[in-house]
Amino acid sequence: MSNTAGKVIKCKAAVAWEAGKPLVIEEVEVAPPQKHEVRLKILFTALCHTDVYFWEAKGQNPLFPRIFGHEAGGIVESVGEGVTELQPGDHVLPVFTGECKECAHCKSEESNMCDLLRINTDRGTMLNDGQTRFSKDGKPIYHFVGTSTFSEYTVSHVGSVAKINPAAPLDKVCVLSCGICTGFGATVNVAKPKKGSSVAIFGLGAVGLAAAEGARVSRASRIIGVDLNSNRFEEAKKFGVSEFVNPKDHNKPVQEVIAEMTNGGVDRSVECTGSIQAMISAFECVHDGWGVAVLVGVPSKDDAFKTHPMNFLNERTLKGTFYGNYKPRSDLPGVVEKYMNKEMELDKFITHSVPFSEINKAFEYMLAGEGIRCIVRMEH
Amino acid sequence: MSNTAGKVIKCKAAVAWEAGKPLVIEEVEVAPPQKHEVRLKILFTALCHTDVYFWEAKGQNPLFPRIFGHEAGGIVESVGEGVTELQPGDHVLPVFTGECKECAHCKSEESNMCDLLRINTDRGTMLNDGQTRFSKDGKPIYHFVGTSTFSEYTVSHVGSVAKINPAAPLDKVCVLSCGICTGFGATVNVAKPKKGSSVAIFGLGAVGLAAAEGARVSRASRIIGVDLNSNRFEEAKKFGVSEFVNPKDHNKPVQEVIAEMTNGGVDRSVECTGSIQAMISAFECVHDGWGVAVLVGVPSKDDAFKTHPMNFLNERTLKGTFYGNYKPRSDLPGVVEKYMNKEMELDKFITHSVPFSEINKAFEYMLAGEGIRCIVRMEH
Ligand SMILES: NC(=O)c1ccc[n+]([C@@H]2O[C@H](COP(=O)([O-])OP(=O)(O)OC[C@H]3O[C@@H](n4cnc5c(N)ncnc54)[C@H](O)[C@@H]3O)[C@@H](O)[C@H]2O)c1
Ligand SMILES: NC(=O)c1ccc[n+]([C@@H]2O[C@H](COP(=O)([O-])OP(=O)(O)OC[C@H]3O[C@@H](n4cnc5c(N)ncnc54)[C@H](O)[C@@H]3O)[C@@H](O)[C@H]2O)c1
Ligand SMILES: [Zn+2]
Ligand SMILES: [Zn+2]
Ligand SMILES: [Zn+2]
Ligand SMILES: [Zn+2]
Repeated sequence: MSNTAGKVIKCKAAVAWEAGKPLVIEEVEVAPPQKHEVRLKILFTALCHTDVYFWEAKGQNPLFPRIFGHEAGGIVESVGEGVTELQPGDHVLPVFTGECKECAHCKSEESNMCDLLRINTDRGTMLNDGQTRFSKDGKPIYHFVGTSTFSEYTVSHVGSVAKINPAAPLDKVCVLSCGICTGFGATVNVAKPKKGSSVAIFGLGAVGLAAAEGARVSRASRIIGVDLNSNRFEEAKKFGVSEFVNPKDHNKPVQEVIAEMTNGGVDRSVECTGSIQAMISAFECVHDGWGVAVLVGVPSKDDAFKTHPMNFLNERTLKGTFYGNYKPRSDLPGVVEKYMNKEMELDKFITHSVPFSEINKAFEYMLAGEGIRCIVRMEH
Repeated sequence: MSNTAGKVIKCKAAVAWEAGKPLVIEEVEVAPPQKHEVRLKILFTALCHTDVYFWEAKGQNPLFPRIFGHEAGGIVESVGEGVTELQPGDHVLPVFTGECKECAHCKSEESNMCDLLRINTDRGTMLNDGQTRFSKDGKPIYHFVGTSTFSEYTVSHVGSVAKINPAAPLDKVCVLSCGICTGFGATVNVAKPKKGSSVAIFGLGAVGLAAAEGARVSRASRIIGVDLNSNRFEEAKKFGVSEFVNPKDHNKPVQEVIAEMTNGGVDRSVECTGSIQAMISAFECVHDGWGVAVLVGVPSKDDAFKTHPMNFLNERTLKGTFYGNYKPRSDLPGVVEKYMNKEMELDKFITHSVPFSEINKAFEYMLAGEGIRCIVRMEH
């Protein structure tokens, strides 16, 4: 047992006091983990778009003060009552969507949408008592998606924490907590391209590039990248994307452009944009008879997916996925092994790195569209 | 070799001279099969809605005089040049969609939408020379979907003819040529319900009841039948359908009714109506996380499938199928064996039987919505 177990820990956290305002590094208090909770020492964390969306809080319910962060690697500091699967010293990745192992979804081979621990961006407190574990001067600071990794220490439900190989470098595998698994899994677990097949990737952000990495690992023969921003194309070459289409360069729908390039359509497509138009194009650009399209991007509330039903009758398949269909506790250790065995690459996703004190720089890189992932080093 | 090989055969055929007018049994001439064609002696044929649609020719291009019919069982009378897979005496089922075994679709494990022999309802002639093999008094009579089984003898492309076990009773297995395989395959090949799962079937016509038979054979624990016509429910009980929903009995969308009945949605649904509203409901009534919906019904030209993309993101799958994803030549012999081994039932689909001279009665039964399949006995 660590000598901090059972005690409040005082440590540094990057607190978002207000929507859209730079985070402030503060000394906060982190209460001990309660029933089915664990307290983690975070070593590395990365910034994802979802942090930025909820920090900007333009479309979302504002909930402040809050500690963001959900891509991270750390070590278990102490565990609460009833936790048997983890112990202090374990190397872990916290994940924004959990796995209780008991609900119908966790028991299904096909789903990872746990009834208990499915992502909830509106909740800022812990399930056990509806309270926060973070406070400053006695005032609560809200959690974010059960992870809140922009803190030297954080508390998570045990179901939201994946135990991984302690030999894995946490400054690299931390990016598996969200975007990279989402895109990679969308390809390898859901689209499942066969060796030699053609794959179109819509959107070449972190998620789309991870989907391309999945296509490369699956030995697709053609990986076609589609983005409205041609600046994304140069970087995408490193991910095996070999052909590029910018819908703005054509005066016909991009699905027609792709059908012409591929003699009737691609074998698989993966949509990683969040744009409804890209979702429809990604579906309509797959080949009849066997084409499979996978939706990953998060749409707007009022979007409608619309297509002619004959496009289905002609034996196309459309699926959506959430976190690449990975069950975090059951599957993440295996993904980490894939990286360790050099079956997938992660280093090329990491384009920046800053010390915790400069975490606002990570926000600046992302807002400027620079690079893919910026690692924040906690440097305890 | 039969002694008719290479010669014109004079025989009886039920000719549709005009849209919507009773068929007339005429003596017609059937030319010998050309390259890659076979001439079949038809023993039994059944009537399907598709015959009626094109005979009524309300929405379709009228093409008359024509010999309809595409569910049938027969025996090869003679074969044309280059035909090596079939020989006189073989027992066969002609099928409206063929399998050339050489195109990308035939070579794909997933598709059955052969580029060469895919259904073509507008073509009334043979591929080899663009001519008909049927004539009366020297005037051509058009073919229908490459089968034209309302004739004692007919000519088909070899790719549209499945060779089956000669021990199989042709008066039963003839119904596998179209609707029954379409519905059964939609469930067992595409929806693939697991043992113990719940399945909703939209539309309880021949195709929907065959889909229910697929669910029964897959040992689904709940088979929920949905139809706007409650008269269909009594017959459907014979097919293992155990619960019924008539959308007209509810003042909320049927997908909500089903979600309430099943704690969030069914595991699988199969739409066999052709109604766009049923297609959308069939998709939205499957459970998130693992639900799969399969579209079978043929929609109208101007229909639009519309749903919120979150319904996909929540890990639902939507697929369409054509002829139950069966490749006719490769797969039909196996389906016939399933019937022979009592792994599927066919007899309960056959509710009527008439001699060839009374074929117009079969049309009357169908137009009155009586029964499921009427067998026409050629009685040579
Ligand atoms: N399903 C999940 O579990 C999950 C998890 C994480 C992220 N996401 C979603 O995945 C999507 C991608 O995330 P990201 O971080 O890579 O985003 P990103 O903003 O870095 O990348 C999106 C890219 O899509 C491009 N784009 C936008 N509209 C387009 C269109 N119509 N056609 C072609 N390209 C278009 C943009 O130019 C951009 O390069 C987002 O919608 C995000 O919310 C989903
Ligand atoms: N994809 C293929 O390969 C293939 C092959 C054969 C037939 N089909 C199609 O399958 C469909 C069914 O064929 P069938 O011969 O069984 O037809 P059918 O007319 O005998 O049965 C259709 C049933 O659907 C019901 N129905 C109609 N609208 C409905 C709605 N909104 N909600 C619930 N029930 C509704 C009708 O009351 C009827 O009982 C047709 O569209 C047909 O064209 C497709
Ligand atoms: Zn669960
Ligand atoms: Zn994320
Ligand atoms: Zn073919
Ligand atoms: Zn038919």
